[in-house]
Amino acid sequence: MMDTSVSVFRTPIKHCRNCGADVVYRVPDDGDTRERAVCPACDTIHYENPLNVVGTVPHWGDKVLLCKRNIEPRWGKWTLPAGFMELNETARDGAARETDEEAGAKFEMEDLIAVLSVPRVGQVHMYWRAKLLSDQFDPGHETIEARLFTEEEIPWDEIAFKTVYETLKCYFADRREGRAGIVHTIDIV
Amino acid sequence: MMDTSVSVFRTPIKHCRNCGADVVYRVPDDGDTRERAVCPACDTIHYENPLNVVGTVPHWGDKVLLCKRNIEPRWGKWTLPAGFMELNETARDGAARETDEEAGAKFEMEDLIAVLSVPRVGQVHMYWRAKLLSDQFDPGHETIEARLFTEEEIPWDEIAFKTVYETLKCYFADRREGRAGIVHTIDIV
Repeated sequence: MMDTSVSVFRTPIKHCRNCGADVVYRVPDDGDTRERAVCPACDTIHYENPLNVVGTVPHWGDKVLLCKRNIEPRWGKWTLPAGFMELNETARDGAARETDEEAGAKFEMEDLIAVLSVPRVGQVHMYWRAKLLSDQFDPGHETIEARLFTEEEIPWDEIAFKTVYETLKCYFADRREGRAGIVHTIDIV
Repeated sequence: MMDTSVSVFRTPIKHCRNCGADVVYRVPDDGDTRERAVCPACDTIHYENPLNVVGTVPHWGDKVLLCKRNIEPRWGKWTLPAGFMELNETARDGAARETDEEAGAKFEMEDLIAVLSVPRVGQVHMYWRAKLLSDQFDPGHETIEARLFTEEEIPWDEIAFKTVYETLKCYFADRREGRAGIVHTIDIV
């Protein structure tokens, strides 16, 4: 339920969150080595750090659940249920929350399948396997359609994000080769 | 090289980062379900999300490298080399950077060992195994002393953070039982 475009987080900070004064980007005087938005009026240092996207690979027999996006970016493309992790939740609980919100699925959370770094946009994506308990879905307003696909049926050219593509490839490869409990760590550079 | 106290990130936002006006905490009108700091002047929505802490378990024979903290919080307690992940780096590269900065160690990065959620402080911690190539260290200003410990020698009552304690326990248990390549997912609630 949070805008998944990246730009809103990555526009430069103009004003201090504490006092409203104009900030300047410079290396702070505290031993830091990176430029931060520093407030010349009240000395507040504004740190900007990567965001976590958490989601699931919901599976039903030999099929996985994909959601057709009703929001930008990548409107109309297919994705796994996922979204930005919030404060006051674990990564796993965030993944479950997004699966509920975007697909309205009934499921049981299983184990972590992939941790993917995407430094270009300052994100880390984490996906858990989730066992579907029903093949009926009730997608939220961010989803045009939620549908089950076998590996062969997946619209590989219409997948919204590289992280989703890679996670799906890992899921089906593990399944084919009878591997369980593997966590894939992937850097998308 | 970044202040590791949590409070700086969790004080309420008072002013808009874009225009400097006073913000109000309310649920935005875009379908969101959580309160955000919203600017009544320019409509900017300020999202606050969990931070990633990335680090390593540097090992040398049957010993691991711990660093005695020269910074708050937990000054004088022992920790694994770790710190906040920055923009423009992968989680793994951030873990390597912190190991270099805090311990001045020579090492080779290995595989992910643990992903720990700490919702109380809005953090996810990720640790990688790292093979030390030397038992000589050159710790940075955040570290009083860098020293190797066997499992029995570790000052378990003087470990700075629960995430570090749990990661060390996983490392030695895996080693004792000859398990390789396991990624432990732990929620610290």
